[in-house]
Amino acid sequence: MGELQYLDGVITLADINTDRPIIILTTDFGLHDYYVGIIKGIIAGLNSRAGLIDNTHDIPPYNIDSGRYTVRTSYRYYPRGSIHLAVVDPGVGTKRKALLIETRDYFFIGPDNGLFSFLEKTEIIRIISLKNRDYFLKEISTTFHARDIFAPVAGYLSLGISPDEFGPEITDIKKIKSNKIRKTKSGLSGDILHIDHFGNIVTSYQLNNLPDSSCLIFLGQKKVGRLRKTYGSVKKGFPVAYINSFGYLEIAVNGGSAAEYFSIVPGSKEKILIATS
Amino acid sequence: MGELQYLDGVITLADINTDRPIIILTTDFGLHDYYVGIIKGIIAGLNSRAGLIDNTHDIPPYNIDSGRYTVRTSYRYYPRGSIHLAVVDPGVGTKRKALLIETRDYFFIGPDNGLFSFLEKTEIIRIISLKNRDYFLKEISTTFHARDIFAPVAGYLSLGISPDEFGPEITDIKKIKSNKIRKTKSGLSGDILHIDHFGNIVTSYQLNNLPDSSCLIFLGQKKVGRLRKTYGSVKKGFPVAYINSFGYLEIAVNGGSAAEYFSIVPGSKEKILIATS
Amino acid sequence: MGELQYLDGVITLADINTDRPIIILTTDFGLHDYYVGIIKGIIAGLNSRAGLIDNTHDIPPYNIDSGRYTVRTSYRYYPRGSIHLAVVDPGVGTKRKALLIETRDYFFIGPDNGLFSFLEKTEIIRIISLKNRDYFLKEISTTFHARDIFAPVAGYLSLGISPDEFGPEITDIKKIKSNKIRKTKSGLSGDILHIDHFGNIVTSYQLNNLPDSSCLIFLGQKKVGRLRKTYGSVKKGFPVAYINSFGYLEIAVNGGSAAEYFSIVPGSKEKILIATS
Repeated sequence: MGELQYLDGVITLADINTDRPIIILTTDFGLHDYYVGIIKGIIAGLNSRAGLIDNTHDIPPYNIDSGRYTVRTSYRYYPRGSIHLAVVDPGVGTKRKALLIETRDYFFIGPDNGLFSFLEKTEIIRIISLKNRDYFLKEISTTFHARDIFAPVAGYLSLGISPDEFGPEITDIKKIKSNKIRKTKSGLSGDILHIDHFGNIVTSYQLNNLPDSSCLIFLGQKKVGRLRKTYGSVKKGFPVAYINSFGYLEIAVNGGSAAEYFSIVPGSKEKILIATS
Repeated sequence: MGELQYLDGVITLADINTDRPIIILTTDFGLHDYYVGIIKGIIAGLNSRAGLIDNTHDIPPYNIDSGRYTVRTSYRYYPRGSIHLAVVDPGVGTKRKALLIETRDYFFIGPDNGLFSFLEKTEIIRIISLKNRDYFLKEISTTFHARDIFAPVAGYLSLGISPDEFGPEITDIKKIKSNKIRKTKSGLSGDILHIDHFGNIVTSYQLNNLPDSSCLIFLGQKKVGRLRKTYGSVKKGFPVAYINSFGYLEIAVNGGSAAEYFSIVPGSKEKILIATS
Repeated sequence: MGELQYLDGVITLADINTDRPIIILTTDFGLHDYYVGIIKGIIAGLNSRAGLIDNTHDIPPYNIDSGRYTVRTSYRYYPRGSIHLAVVDPGVGTKRKALLIETRDYFFIGPDNGLFSFLEKTEIIRIISLKNRDYFLKEISTTFHARDIFAPVAGYLSLGISPDEFGPEITDIKKIKSNKIRKTKSGLSGDILHIDHFGNIVTSYQLNNLPDSSCLIFLGQKKVGRLRKTYGSVKKGFPVAYINSFGYLEIAVNGGSAAEYFSIVPGSKEKILIATS
C-alpha cells in the first residue's frame, strides 16, 4: 500500500490511489431523504471503483460557516489524493460559481460561496470554474446541483480526467472571514463553532489564542473553569474546558452534556469569554 | 468503464457490472439499531465485491406509500443492472409473498405489498415468488425477513445466480393506486407525498397535471402563490412553489422550512389545491 | 467465494477474506459530526481494500451496557474473519486498557471497559493490550482514541499484520455482569435492554428463561399478555410479546410503538415481570 508518510501528524499515503479513489461527502442534506444516496448512485455509475465515505450530512441547513468549519478541521484525516465533495448550497440555481479546487494533497468540489475559503493560496495548485456540460448530467435542475453537476464531476475526476477538462481556470474563490477572537476590556471574546453529538461545545479558540494556561474560561456569564487535560479531569457532572482532539478549546460536562448544562442550543450566539488571571 | 448512455436524462451504464454489483437499500428500519448493518453483513458474507449504497432508511415506519414514492422517484439514478432491495414490511410473518422482480434495467427485491406497484408491465421481464430456501438463512424468523430472506437473495443474485433459481415465476404483483389529482368545483386537489430534511413539501402534482403556468397554488386555505423557477425566485422567508428536481410540484420557503411555515407535520392530510386563473 | 458454512444458523464464510477484509463499526458517536467519517478516512488511508460497514453509531452516549448488548447480539451476522471495531469509551484518556481480542471467528478492537465481556473464555484465542505506538497515529489525543489508536490498529490488522505485533498478550479483560433474571415471590423479574426504532421493547429474557409458553407477561403493573408468534398475532394497536429474531423476549404494538403505548423512554428502569400461570 505504499510508504506511509506523516502530514501534520496524520498518517497519509504519498500517491493518489487510482485503483480505489476515495470521495468524501460533506453536506447539509441529512439522511432523511435519498439525496445522498442518489449522489452515490451517480458516482457509482461513472466509476464503480470509487470508495465513498460520508464525512457528515448533518451540517445545519444552509449554514456555510458550519460547513467550512467541518471541512477545514477534518479533510486532512482522509487519504492524500482524495476528492472532497462538499455541498452546503443556499445559492443553488443563482449565479454563484461551481468549483473544482486542486491543492497539493486533495481535490475539493462544491459551490463558490465561502465553503472552501480556509484554503491557503500557497496550498492551491489551480481553481477551475465548472463549465463543461459534457461532464454534467444531461438536464440541470435549478435546485439540486450536487446531483446534476458536482457528483458527475467527482465521478469523472476519480476516473483520472484532468481538472482543466472541466472548465476554465480562475484566480480566486469567494472568501469569508473566519470567526476571530476579539479583545475586550477584561480579556478575550470568542464564539461557539459547533455543538457535537455529546453536547460538547466547540469554541473558536485554539491553543495559541489563549493568554496562558491558567486563564479563566466563561460561557456568557457562567464560569467553566481553568484549562484541563480531558473531561475525566473533573468529577462526573461537572463542566470542564480543554483543547479538543482537533486543536480547539472545547467545553464539556464529564459524563453529561455541556449543551444541556449551559442551556445552549444550535445557533446560540453566546460568547466564550476568557479572563486573564 | 464502458460507453455512457442516457436513460431518461440520467447517466447510466449499458452493462451489468459483474466486477462490482451495486445493491441499493431502501427501508423504514432507521439507523438507531443494527438492522441495516446486519443486512449488509449478510450480503458482504456472500459477495464481498458487492457495493452497498443506502438510498434511505428513514421511510416513516410501516408506510408503504412513502416507500413506493421513494423507490419510484430515485431508482433510475443508480447504475443500470443494480439491485434495489426495498423493505417496508408491516405484513412480515403473514402470507404476503416475497418478490424478486427483473425489469429491463434493474432488479427489485422486497415484500409483495404494493411497494413496487409503480413498475409498468412493459418494463417487467419476470416476477419471481421467492420460495427456494437454499438461498435463505437456515432459520427464518417471523419478524425480520430482510435479514433472513431478502438480504441473502440479493447477495446470491449479485453473484450471478439466475433469477429463476429463487422460485417460481408469477404473473402479478400487488397493485396500489398512486395518489391521484382530483377535480373539484374550483380547480384541482392533490396530496402531500413527502416532507424532506429542509422542510420542503413535495406534492402529488407533476408538471403535466398543472392547468397552466399561471395557476394559483394553495396549501389548504393558505395561498402559496404562482409557479416559480426555484426558491431563490422569492425573497428570503417567503413561500414559493416550483417543479422540483424530480419533476414534482414542491412548496418551500426560501432559506427556511415550509413545513414550519405552514405547520405541516409528517402524516398531515392537508390538501394542495390549485385554482385556475 | 468459497464454500458456505453455517455457524449458529448464520451464513458465514470459512476463510478470512484478505482480498476485501470487512471492518464493522459500533459506536456511540452518532452521525451528527465527522467522528465516524474520520475513522473511516484513517482506515481507508491504510488499507483501501477494507470494506467498512456501520453496525450502528446510535448507542446511547457512554452506555457500555447498551454497547455490549449491541455487539453481542449482532457480531455473528458478519462474515467470519471480520474485524469488529467497537467504541463506547467514557474512560478515554484515563488508565483503561486498549484491546485487540482474537476469537475463533472474529477480531474485536476497543476499550477494556466491559464492552466485550460477553466473549466466552473458550472462544478467545488471545487478548492483546494495544501498546505499540508504531501502529497508532503520531500524536495521541486524550479524548479521541477511536481515531488515534483503534482505527489505525484496525487498518493495519486488516493488512495482515499479526495481532502480537500490536502489544503484549494479557490474560483477562474487564468483566461486567450481564442483566440477570431474578426470582420474585410471584414469578420472575427482568430488565429492558433496548428500545428500537419502531418503539419495540427488547427485554433481558431469552426463551430458556421463560417458565412455560403460557406464562403471563407484565411491563411494570401493566399486562402485556401471553407469548405469541409475531406482532401480526394480535389486532392492530394491541400490545404483544414474542421471541424476537435475535432470541429475546420483545414487547411490541402491532402497527404502532410499544414505547409510546407503555410510556417507556430510553433509560427507563421499569421491570418486566413474568407470572407463572
